Amino acid sequence: MSGTIWSVDEHLDDILAAVRPLEPIELQLPEAQGCVLVEDVMVAVSLPPFDNSSMDGYAVRVSDVEGASEEFPAVLTVVGDVAAGADGLADGRSVAPGEAARIMTGAPLPAGAEAVVPVEWTDGGTGGGPATAMRAHSDAPEGASGEVRVHRPVKARAHVRAKGSDVRTGDLALRAGTVLGPAQIGLLAAIGRPSVKVRPRPRVVVLSTGSELAQPGEELSGGQIYDSNSFALTAAARDAGAIAYRVPAVADDAESLRATIEDQLIRADILVTTGGVSVGAYDVVKEALSSVGERPAQETGDGDDGPAGGVDFRRLAMQPGKPQGFGTIGPDHTPLLALPGNPVSSYVSFELFVRPAIRTLMGLEDVHRPRVRAALDVQEPLSSPSGKRQFLRGRYDAEAGTVTPVGGPGSHLVAALAQADALIVLPEDMTSAAPGTPAEVILLR
Amino acid sequence: MSGTIWSVDEHLDDILAAVRPLEPIELQLPEAQGCVLVEDVMVAVSLPPFDNSSMDGYAVRVSDVEGASEEFPAVLTVVGDVAAGADGLADGRSVAPGEAARIMTGAPLPAGAEAVVPVEWTDGGTGGGPATAMRAHSDAPEGASGEVRVHRPVKARAHVRAKGSDVRTGDLALRAGTVLGPAQIGLLAAIGRPSVKVRPRPRVVVLSTGSELAQPGEELSGGQIYDSNSFALTAAARDAGAIAYRVPAVADDAESLRATIEDQLIRADILVTTGGVSVGAYDVVKEALSSVGERPAQETGDGDDGPAGGVDFRRLAMQPGKPQGFGTIGPDHTPLLALPGNPVSSYVSFELFVRPAIRTLMGLEDVHRPRVRAALDVQEPLSSPSGKRQFLRGRYDAEAGTVTPVGGPGSHLVAALAQADALIVLPEDMTSAAPGTPAEVILLR
Repeated sequence: MSGTIWSVDEHLDDILAAVRPLEPIELQLPEAQGCVLVEDVMVAVSLPPFDNSSMDGYAVRVSDVEGASEEFPAVLTVVGDVAAGADGLADGRSVAPGEAARIMTGAPLPAGAEAVVPVEWTDGGTGGGPATAMRAHSDAPEGASGEVRVHRPVKARAHVRAKGSDVRTGDLALRAGTVLGPAQIGLLAAIGRPSVKVRPRPRVVVLSTGSELAQPGEELSGGQIYDSNSFALTAAARDAGAIAYRVPAVADDAESLRATIEDQLIRADILVTTGGVSVGAYDVVKEALSSVGERPAQETGDGDDGPAGGVDFRRLAMQPGKPQGFGTIGPDHTPLLALPGNPVSSYVSFELFVRPAIRTLMGLEDVHRPRVRAALDVQEPLSSPSGKRQFLRGRYDAEAGTVTPVGGPGSHLVAALAQADALIVLPEDMTSAAPGTPAEVILLR
Repeated sequence: MSGTIWSVDEHLDDILAAVRPLEPIELQLPEAQGCVLVEDVMVAVSLPPFDNSSMDGYAVRVSDVEGASEEFPAVLTVVGDVAAGADGLADGRSVAPGEAARIMTGAPLPAGAEAVVPVEWTDGGTGGGPATAMRAHSDAPEGASGEVRVHRPVKARAHVRAKGSDVRTGDLALRAGTVLGPAQIGLLAAIGRPSVKVRPRPRVVVLSTGSELAQPGEELSGGQIYDSNSFALTAAARDAGAIAYRVPAVADDAESLRATIEDQLIRADILVTTGGVSVGAYDVVKEALSSVGERPAQETGDGDDGPAGGVDFRRLAMQPGKPQGFGTIGPDHTPLLALPGNPVSSYVSFELFVRPAIRTLMGLEDVHRPRVRAALDVQEPLSSPSGKRQFLRGRYDAEAGTVTPVGGPGSHLVAALAQADALIVLPEDMTSAAPGTPAEVILLR
């Protein structure tokens, strides 16, 4: 633990300077959801790939229906069906003068035809009045033959979607850096891409430490509390976009902690520990990983390849969350963030430091939660420690433009945390905040 | 297809009136993330469960350190360690007058002690000046004995977190209806709950239909296009909170469609099809499922137990997305939404109808996307069909308070859809929208 006090921003900058976006991999579309594209994706096949009908109706030659009306319909010979998926009329037949082909939405315009007349502008081949629909092909295959009466003229290309009218071969479909949501996944599928090169979701291993920790559902013995950090932070890591693994609480023993961390390195793009980072005699995270600790690095190897070494433990000018550790460990220099053990401290630390690190690994440009300003909704002035940035839990009211603190400043108030949807930031130089003071608010949802 | 034209709201109301929240199940905490709690969760164990230290330091009797200063320290005999997880001092020993116990953050206050002196206010047992930290217990077990010099007095209960100061046995921890995010999961773990009763994530089966559909990565033959709907809607269903299953495109054959749907029913809380709902002769979704179709219900059973029957096909006063089907099928009356096949139509329909249905199944109160008003950023007036609600794709600029249409009104413009982050709503009675017109905007992100 160096004597220097780090500011929140210095600690965050140090983390973000060390964390690099993950190496891209090729992923199938469903797996790529939520990931950042690292290639400019060009269109290999025009959309639509061929002129096709935008309606269910009849493909005709324009001159054949000129001047047609309900009273004086154009009577055309139906020479067949063009269903979606068919490559024009059967046997490569064309639509000749006086002829029409029954055509379905999305089906290619057959050779010879110049436009499509919607079925509602015809008698649907029934010989009766205007049709509202075609009869199902399976029930009435004869609909693909006989005569159709057309009640309206159409212009050339009417109800025809032109080849390439959406995108053309060689166009840029999606730029590198795009986050792949449902519409982007849909576009990639539409242009025939089964997979794309993206940065994968980071794998986050969350590991809580403390001999006092029992698992939920177990009976508590004297001095024990339930492990909540590993559950909360695993959920928060998933929320941030990561694949999160929760490791059941590790007791306060430096050797087993080192062994557990070495075991976990293989599936971790980033490691998060909670607890054991303060000034106590049993703060084993610090003991096991500190680069400036009393245990020499060579005890576990060359100091660069083992989990020892590389993690710097600091005091931050913030409340809660004063003691923090950050560094890289193992052969791949995996980033490790050692958070304090109090549930509120660890959660706030996660939001401030781990979430931006995860989103940096993902290659996202915007790694931070949105921030707004809101008036403090309090009855009495809030006091805040001088020289520390304080993060209070609050509820934000967007309409009123206010934020109301929930619970007290105590870092163990996990019940109040569950009611909060925002963090209220009181800066280092503020020692008192009067009712109505405009405060910076970090939105958590 | 009935002759009535349904409004967007009538169709949505009809769907939401028929869809009921899923039956609750007990889920382990990690699985319950994002789910809605259906029980009021009471606190079974107070938090903290016992008086404990908020600092690393020494547990003392107040009268022993009265008037202590650096110049005239109180010298106390260290009688042992209280580590986190320990049930007080070894052998149930108390802190007697003139004694102190070394104590760690979170450890229970031992019998006899009344307050905690932080290690920084002592010599840390070194016999030197003020300490900055304790030596690790593993390196210096002798720190738990000997003498400590205390440099400051403390009041009773100083640096002690009282039992129950966070929540007390019998308190309401979380109310039924709460959505379980990371902080709520953390609270449940903290009070010892390994599992909770929630509404599970809905299982959504997405099935695209069309003989023209090829899978991305395949070679296109004449008349074929790539299936994009099943990819986009599966991703959108996941985004909405569902577990989504994608079924590769089914050809336009009513029998195979019926068979596929029957197969899928077992894993579906809701079924979504795309394509085959219009007036064409090959619109097999309508043919296979229509309750008013030409195929009598008894052909596939009693009409209530089979996939046939129960689905009503409609025309909606909207663009895109005019033809829609909705009903329930199978022995469990599974809701089925039959969306049109054009990629933009199906995506817009999903947003308007399927997403709220999924979120209703989840038991969420707020099932709709946020809506705002924004000024239309266009050079020329937009035209909109009379009597239809038009949904244009747009980009929303929150700072400027504007929305800019992207792409044209054509429902096949999937490339433009991938650039949009909002839907612009032009109401039924609006036929022209001048630049700057305030429009309703549905935010998609």
